[in-house]
Amino acid sequence: MLRLSLLPFHRFPISSHFLNLSPKSTMAVSASFTTSSHSSKLLFRQLFEKESSTYTYLLADVSHPDKPALLIDPVDKTVDRDLSLVKELGLKLVYAMNTHVHADHVTGTGLIKSKLDGVKSVISRASKSKADHLIEAGDKIYFGDMFLEVRATPGHTLGCVTYVTGDGPNQPQPRMAFTGDALLIRGCGRTDFQGGSSDQLYESVHSQIFTLPKDTLIYPAHDYKGFTVSTVGEEMLYNPRLTKNKEGFEDIMKNLKLAYPKMIDIAVPANMVCGLQDLSERPAESVST
Amino acid sequence: MLRLSLLPFHRFPISSHFLNLSPKSTMAVSASFTTSSHSSKLLFRQLFEKESSTYTYLLADVSHPDKPALLIDPVDKTVDRDLSLVKELGLKLVYAMNTHVHADHVTGTGLIKSKLDGVKSVISRASKSKADHLIEAGDKIYFGDMFLEVRATPGHTLGCVTYVTGDGPNQPQPRMAFTGDALLIRGCGRTDFQGGSSDQLYESVHSQIFTLPKDTLIYPAHDYKGFTVSTVGEEMLYNPRLTKNKEGFEDIMKNLKLAYPKMIDIAVPANMVCGLQDLSERPAESVST
Repeated sequence: MLRLSLLPFHRFPISSHFLNLSPKSTMAVSASFTTSSHSSKLLFRQLFEKESSTYTYLLADVSHPDKPALLIDPVDKTVDRDLSLVKELGLKLVYAMNTHVHADHVTGTGLIKSKLDGVKSVISRASKSKADHLIEAGDKIYFGDMFLEVRATPGHTLGCVTYVTGDGPNQPQPRMAFTGDALLIRGCGRTDFQGGSSDQLYESVHSQIFTLPKDTLIYPAHDYKGFTVSTVGEEMLYNPRLTKNKEGFEDIMKNLKLAYPKMIDIAVPANMVCGLQDLSERPAESVST
Repeated sequence: MLRLSLLPFHRFPISSHFLNLSPKSTMAVSASFTTSSHSSKLLFRQLFEKESSTYTYLLADVSHPDKPALLIDPVDKTVDRDLSLVKELGLKLVYAMNTHVHADHVTGTGLIKSKLDGVKSVISRASKSKADHLIEAGDKIYFGDMFLEVRATPGHTLGCVTYVTGDGPNQPQPRMAFTGDALLIRGCGRTDFQGGSSDQLYESVHSQIFTLPKDTLIYPAHDYKGFTVSTVGEEMLYNPRLTKNKEGFEDIMKNLKLAYPKMIDIAVPANMVCGLQDLSERPAESVST
């Protein structure tokens, strides 16, 4: 298991939080509808790229003198905005990470690396992409005294992971899960491209995300309706797809009749290598601004 | 002073927080860059309407058996989304409020009242609009044991207010300021319509918002670059307009050369009366869906 850490090794008592699914009941989940995660150490920002409706997340340990930070799912078009914010907040960006190989936008990881020294790109080994760090289920990615744990959540793509904030006394409470396209708010990513599998996605969400504490905050890679956050408890009750049994879910996913992803032929090759700047032949029409 | 309260009167020790502006220094504001507000009582959701880039805010006191809730700046087009969320979260919506008479979208307050019994609309008396409650500076708007205090922040329009979460032991920390268009993230609303005045806006922001504790979270009515939140400390350092002196600010505002607001002739008359449904003559082309 890879352990990414900018700083001296810190070990926290990590207890497991594998709760069983409880029966559908508003009472049972009423405590799950929390406001936001709290930690005096964590600086957290949710950022939006309107064209692809992508959320980028900035996390930093501001209790550490270096203020080490990471970006999850940065978009090439908003790299300048993100780096400007990092600078204004006095953070030291350490990692530029992806939850998976996106098909709808070009990642900003490569561009960030070219603009800021010392940043390392991170993606799952299962994605078969190039990056500085190839992570696997169970890995912990440290930034200061805080960390994200890696959960494998394939199904939208083969290499999808969910990053979950640590479980421990010095970690944010409630926990926060950056689910990529595995679990969206009242939805989920499509399963008809990039090694997608509805069977696998169903298993991933139920075994890796719905087993988290119900108050865990869900921060997806996209939202198309203007939601910014949900909770495990809410999605277990109200996700119109993932509350079905597996057969019902697979049926829904088989009949979505979605259009061919318009960016896929540009985005996927670029995202396998941290962005367009690392493609040997850059398609002229796809140069981002 | 009006005191809106669903519940029995609760008085909190309200101390004043009028800090002086400190000189520009990264050290001075490093503690201002917090993650999010925390209260085990508060449920908070930020919602986005993409067409007008409007943020709607849902706040509820979930420690109270009724879970009384309010919506700030709801948009007519997203009323169904918002009410659906209110229902799923088991909340009792009490107030549908506006920070001001918007010129870029039609408010959802009237539509909400027509769909949900018992909801009261709220806007400032200075806006000269119709609503169930006309609020003034210093008013407190209670939802359960929590409240918003009203600060007059005219300048974008004559009737603009900023709603700020209460100051007290049972109120969210850090405080949250819903600034409407008075203060945007790294920007501010235009001042060339609806009784706008750059002189007045400058005074409003400096006397009513920049005097809040620096870690106060800024939640504006809009963002066009994908930011979701800022802090008083950040805006005092990095707002490209409001960090100028008043003369410099007025100069910027005078030379913005913005286009005529495309929705203003539909939105403003509608928003003076809680939405299109309350206009005696509804413009056919402006019926929202």
